[in-house]
Amino acid sequence: MFSVTVRDHIMIAHSFSGEVFGPAQKLHGATFVVDATFKRPELDADNIVVDIGRASEELHAICGALSYRNLDDEAEFTGVNTSTEFLAKVIADRLAGKAESGELGAGARGLSGIAVTLHESHIAWASYERNL
Amino acid sequence: MFSVTVRDHIMIAHSFSGEVFGPAQKLHGATFVVDATFKRPELDADNIVVDIGRASEELHAICGALSYRNLDDEAEFTGVNTSTEFLAKVIADRLAGKAESGELGAGARGLSGIAVTLHESHIAWASYERNL
Amino acid sequence: MFSVTVRDHIMIAHSFSGEVFGPAQKLHGATFVVDATFKRPELDADNIVVDIGRASEELHAICGALSYRNLDDEAEFTGVNTSTEFLAKVIADRLAGKAESGELGAGARGLSGIAVTLHESHIAWASYERNL
Amino acid sequence: MFSVTVRDHIMIAHSFSGEVFGPAQKLHGATFVVDATFKRPELDADNIVVDIGRASEELHAICGALSYRNLDDEAEFTGVNTSTEFLAKVIADRLAGKAESGELGAGARGLSGIAVTLHESHIAWASYERNL
Amino acid sequence: MFSVTVRDHIMIAHSFSGEVFGPAQKLHGATFVVDATFKRPELDADNIVVDIGRASEELHAICGALSYRNLDDEAEFTGVNTSTEFLAKVIADRLAGKAESGELGAGARGLSGIAVTLHESHIAWASYERNL
Amino acid sequence: MFSVTVRDHIMIAHSFSGEVFGPAQKLHGATFVVDATFKRPELDADNIVVDIGRASEELHAICGALSYRNLDDEAEFTGVNTSTEFLAKVIADRLAGKAESGELGAGARGLSGIAVTLHESHIAWASYERNL
Repeated sequence: MFSVTVRDHIMIAHSFSGEVFGPAQKLHGATFVVDATFKRPELDADNIVVDIGRASEELHAICGALSYRNLDDEAEFTGVNTSTEFLAKVIADRLAGKAESGELGAGARGLSGIAVTLHESHIAWASYERNL
Repeated sequence: MFSVTVRDHIMIAHSFSGEVFGPAQKLHGATFVVDATFKRPELDADNIVVDIGRASEELHAICGALSYRNLDDEAEFTGVNTSTEFLAKVIADRLAGKAESGELGAGARGLSGIAVTLHESHIAWASYERNL
Repeated sequence: MFSVTVRDHIMIAHSFSGEVFGPAQKLHGATFVVDATFKRPELDADNIVVDIGRASEELHAICGALSYRNLDDEAEFTGVNTSTEFLAKVIADRLAGKAESGELGAGARGLSGIAVTLHESHIAWASYERNL
Repeated sequence: MFSVTVRDHIMIAHSFSGEVFGPAQKLHGATFVVDATFKRPELDADNIVVDIGRASEELHAICGALSYRNLDDEAEFTGVNTSTEFLAKVIADRLAGKAESGELGAGARGLSGIAVTLHESHIAWASYERNL
Repeated sequence: MFSVTVRDHIMIAHSFSGEVFGPAQKLHGATFVVDATFKRPELDADNIVVDIGRASEELHAICGALSYRNLDDEAEFTGVNTSTEFLAKVIADRLAGKAESGELGAGARGLSGIAVTLHESHIAWASYERNL
Repeated sequence: MFSVTVRDHIMIAHSFSGEVFGPAQKLHGATFVVDATFKRPELDADNIVVDIGRASEELHAICGALSYRNLDDEAEFTGVNTSTEFLAKVIADRLAGKAESGELGAGARGLSGIAVTLHESHIAWASYERNL
């Protein structure tokens, strides 16, 4: 199995609902350093998994649509705890949509899986991994 | 599959038995930066894998019981090569016990796997991964 | 010159005022990984710059008083752009206060300087450095 | 499952063929930080996956045979796009050969898998993973 | 003293002249992860050292003019050993020019110093630091 | 001012004397990731600060003489707290001796300063800096 990973980041405000979150129930924020991994069993005709430049651009577009926002105010996240692991899934699913629609290049239709890791600090991170 | 990882560290002395270990047969030491990963196929009712704060505390307790010791003098490790990969299993198994006993929170009973990585330097690390 | 550095982090929400900040004028957030460096020309009687455990505790207390907040709502930051470099100074000054009051240990009165770096992402960080 | 990873690096020149590569079609270069992971379901008689010193030496030999070269001029890579993901496979396959021939030690014959990751920058890396 | 640092990278081919360079006399290549630090004794009217977005853009432009090239073929580097430390000075001097010309923003005319670090691998890096 | 840094590491056992050290009074151990920085105001005739290969070899020799030992048993450290900051000075002074004796190359006689940082974990490190 081959994979390629590209990195970007988002900076957001949000709060959590539920006693388990303790002080994180208050409005606070986070930088999430975002690693997006693309997987396929064999390389394409250019000898790559996906073009790193293209993958970086598409990840950057997805990050741009999330960053510099208070997620509590975004309609799509109303009533949702936008935990690190949940946001990893949001980004992975959006990348999957781009792979399927051809926005990641024709070759990217051969991808078999996507994984996204969000680093919230030097001591904590979360991931979501799915098939295509 | 979702996962959450938290990081802590231990500082221990130990020695190894066996020619393969060369100079590491002498009493020496290591800092192990410990990454503990918790996995589950679906998020819990709070939209998380496990509470990061709680996971950090339990990992810290396990690290505290190992750190600032000469492992050669610990009864539980008598006659055992406390290699990086072996210690990864020790910590993973202790975390598994906490998940099963409920010490990681009621939701953590839904965890499906645990992985532990110990970084012994900037150029070497080892992991152990198990199901729950 | 000797120095010792300890690392912690804060997670905050804030917004900026001024066109130069572009999209960061909206409420967003950041994880700041905080590195606090303590300097002195000679080691103390214990052969250290400052006790790493004590320095970590005091930095943790300062971080705790800033973290999990919307800085826009904090009285002490009213009308202030809480930029990364500005927050580095806030933390450095608070550590300086602790060094002078003896909260960092009697030996810490021999410190000659403090520097604080805040990492806001994998591609940007800021620092403030001062004498004691 | 247990694993051990060791790190080394190579510094090479190369160019790519294909419009997808944009400016990387010109002769340029890269440092690849190389992480080689060795896996096995159970530890060997010495309580290890593979000797870290031995694994480091063998990885270093493989890196030495690739580094400080223009890969475009190497007979084995004629007409091949030496992408990051392709080079990960080259190194993984050479390590697999060493595992099978006994150069990684007698115990290494119990290895079940090898994975190699090449970091080409702080924002992009690629991997190849195979069974033994 | 305050400082702000932004990170980018270049990927280049080059060779060195001189026995001291050993195998690096052959055409090879490198990824240089580039950290550019901007310093000033006091913050500007917006409470910043320099706008991080603007600094990132200008560093990116400088990196773009160096990257994806064989430096041996660039007229400006004819007969020059483009060592890591030398390239750090090239980038620092170009940033200094932008600070003086106002391309980094009007406030950047208050900068007192610039430092550039180029990381050539996980085990080696070089820096150049100058006044403005 | 120019600088070049190379990285290596040591793995040692030791204990500390003094109440300030708490649990670290017991025999324990550490991996120290060692960064050695060489400084000079102008580059030498080869356009470098010091040959990175040569600097790495000499640092490796110094690390080899310290690593895989219980520092409590080394005659040179009898009755000394081998703190991270103290060991940074030990390594810096040994490198200074090599610079002065010509072991770092004839050009290294032009070095003006040396700094050594020892990373004891992901959250703590210490440095010593001196002139030549």
